[in-house]
Amino acid sequence: MSDIPYQMKTSKEEKLDRFTVVIDELDIHGRNARYSYIKVRPGVCVITKFEDEIICLKEFRHPIKSWSYEFTCGMIEDGETPEETAIREVKEETGCIVDKLYSLGEFYPSFGATDETIHLFLAQCEERGEAELEFTEFISMHPMGVEEVNKLIKNGEFKHGAGLAAWLKAQPYLKEK
Amino acid sequence: MSDIPYQMKTSKEEKLDRFTVVIDELDIHGRNARYSYIKVRPGVCVITKFEDEIICLKEFRHPIKSWSYEFTCGMIEDGETPEETAIREVKEETGCIVDKLYSLGEFYPSFGATDETIHLFLAQCEERGEAELEFTEFISMHPMGVEEVNKLIKNGEFKHGAGLAAWLKAQPYLKEK
Repeated sequence: MSDIPYQMKTSKEEKLDRFTVVIDELDIHGRNARYSYIKVRPGVCVITKFEDEIICLKEFRHPIKSWSYEFTCGMIEDGETPEETAIREVKEETGCIVDKLYSLGEFYPSFGATDETIHLFLAQCEERGEAELEFTEFISMHPMGVEEVNKLIKNGEFKHGAGLAAWLKAQPYLKEK
Repeated sequence: MSDIPYQMKTSKEEKLDRFTVVIDELDIHGRNARYSYIKVRPGVCVITKFEDEIICLKEFRHPIKSWSYEFTCGMIEDGETPEETAIREVKEETGCIVDKLYSLGEFYPSFGATDETIHLFLAQCEERGEAELEFTEFISMHPMGVEEVNKLIKNGEFKHGAGLAAWLKAQPYLKEK
């Protein structure tokens, strides 16, 4: 952190509903500036492959008031590793039991406004049970081939940020098979 | 909006520093649920190509307290079209004058917590002037070839969410040339 190009003067946190906002006062070469951002728990996004098909989800997303194609996502709970979260979320959202999990690295979905990190994975699954959805989750499963996912991305129907990042980073794995 | 799978009971907005939080009370098949999210102005992310090189930026991002490789980004101001924002931001951040602008569609960087939409573009530039940075912006320019960007993405150094989405969607344009 020694390469921060300014001085931090003060930092405070305030809460509003489920969000914690960090409000920092900075000294940038003698000039004052204020920078606020939202503290967000890190999360995972997992491309779930069941046998030869990608399990694409369609979920209703309240902030954008529409149904969205996406891959499995979730927040890392206290005490979990990103890998454990990935395995748990794939089971909860798709019913699939992860056989092999490939890390695709991590990224920042919105580093202008949040400190959120999302860890990306590709999960290969050979067994499948029942999904366990919350009553607040509206999710349907759409198994499809790699080319169908490519088509949804190309024609603009797949607009899930973390899903797009995961798909880009999964390319070497998807081509090999 | 008629396909919302629940009833909206109430909706209010509260402000905290630069953020506006929407707090909605929902009736999901007779059960109450609360959903809050952050209202975010839509933005753009632009892959800037100057002659044959991609202008990669390295910017210090306060929320993650680190330098980050990324492409040009910015919020759409009142009265601007996404295309106008793209042209303005490329000029401000890189000094490049956009000659041709290709739309790569739009996506949602974080639809679990915000309503933000980001419009993606590829800008071909042949002329270049001076960048016009704010005193709060710490940005350096790194022109590089397509393969160098691919390497930064593959080895995990490029972690910019909107940039990754733009790069995936720009693939057909980058291969053609």
